[in-house]
Amino acid sequence: MPSEEPQPAIVLVRPQMGENIGAAARAMWNFGLDRMRIVAPRDGWPNPKADAMASGAGRLLDEAQLCADLPEAIGDSAFVFATTARQRDLTKPVFDPEEAMRLAADKIASGEKVAILFGPERAGLENEDIARANAIISVPVNPAFPSLNLAQCVLLAGYEWQRQRTAAPTPARTVPDVATGAEVEALARHYEERLEEAGFFFPDSKAESMKVHLRNLWSRMPMTRADVRMLHGILRQMVRWKERGG
Amino acid sequence: MPSEEPQPAIVLVRPQMGENIGAAARAMWNFGLDRMRIVAPRDGWPNPKADAMASGAGRLLDEAQLCADLPEAIGDSAFVFATTARQRDLTKPVFDPEEAMRLAADKIASGEKVAILFGPERAGLENEDIARANAIISVPVNPAFPSLNLAQCVLLAGYEWQRQRTAAPTPARTVPDVATGAEVEALARHYEERLEEAGFFFPDSKAESMKVHLRNLWSRMPMTRADVRMLHGILRQMVRWKERGG
Repeated sequence: MPSEEPQPAIVLVRPQMGENIGAAARAMWNFGLDRMRIVAPRDGWPNPKADAMASGAGRLLDEAQLCADLPEAIGDSAFVFATTARQRDLTKPVFDPEEAMRLAADKIASGEKVAILFGPERAGLENEDIARANAIISVPVNPAFPSLNLAQCVLLAGYEWQRQRTAAPTPARTVPDVATGAEVEALARHYEERLEEAGFFFPDSKAESMKVHLRNLWSRMPMTRADVRMLHGILRQMVRWKERGG
Repeated sequence: MPSEEPQPAIVLVRPQMGENIGAAARAMWNFGLDRMRIVAPRDGWPNPKADAMASGAGRLLDEAQLCADLPEAIGDSAFVFATTARQRDLTKPVFDPEEAMRLAADKIASGEKVAILFGPERAGLENEDIARANAIISVPVNPAFPSLNLAQCVLLAGYEWQRQRTAAPTPARTVPDVATGAEVEALARHYEERLEEAGFFFPDSKAESMKVHLRNLWSRMPMTRADVRMLHGILRQMVRWKERGG
């Protein structure tokens, strides 16, 4: 049974080696984190090599939520962090682990669900994954040697989670009715589809980067459910207007 | 050549597996630490398994100082920390990694030499080793699962060293190219006018509160100039689409 204590979900996106998944489970449990989600693991699931490595934290693997894609894994999350090593050209707030986990602790204390994404061992998260996150966590490593492995990256996040959750609680802010990841995803899809029809993504050579920018925009915005409803409404009304004809 | 920057020496006391020594070297260099001392390694020195694991941080092993015993390894040190997992019945100050590295940074800044001891993988440091230290570093791990490995323990010390030595300025939150109030206002007006034409603010009795909500939405969003341009573009394209006719 997962612990009762509210905490961020740790989402391993397309992890490759089972050993690393097991080591990540150990790193989580070292700091009391026990909600793992695994998106499309390369070598299938369950993975005996993960079990062998996880010794003592094997329960986390048994209880891990296997997800077909990233939207499924963050569907319930109101706030998503993406961990990256390289600098990305994406306009999102960038936090170090301490700031990020302080923010996560605040959000969780006020009832929001938080997820933290970790990319595959070699390449890290794709821009498309990061576009679905609200903010970036970047560990201030030695620029001459920035190669943290997956479990180490999870360990540092867990360490800071442990530090921040036990830090003096900041007074609760009232977060009114924050939109979930699934709601933001549906909004992003709605705009993408209609704008595709409307010929917005033009020229073709720029279409992909325009889509990533648009996704980034939605995921970066602190939206309530009412905001999301209004943005859906705007688009539907523009389509109706078109259909009525000039 | 070791880096010029004064820093604590990392002392591995009777380490067992070469792989762990290599992994510890990587963890050190991730955070710019490059002064390793090795006391009586079980499998001799040099160790090809350590070299294989250290990839990218192999220089630290080549330059490591091999010592016959602990007194030799800390002979030049004015202040010695011992890392332990278990509670020890030794009357010494116990610090968490943050406090310890803050103290280390202060001491190093005032010219003192500092060493940090890490014990063998299985048993950790002996009481006799700890007796030679001035203070203890204890990582606040999950009491139900306190098993950090050697390299992870070194990683957390390095992470805190990096944090404390750079403590003064907090890393900048990068939100580049923020839209000005006037730009957001122009965007709000653009949407309000077109949506008015499109019949979005309906029924009349709700029009005013819908407009207020929409204005609130724009002004609450942390938008860049590029975001504002894209949102203008979306609306213009929807109008063009309408004008082309279904």
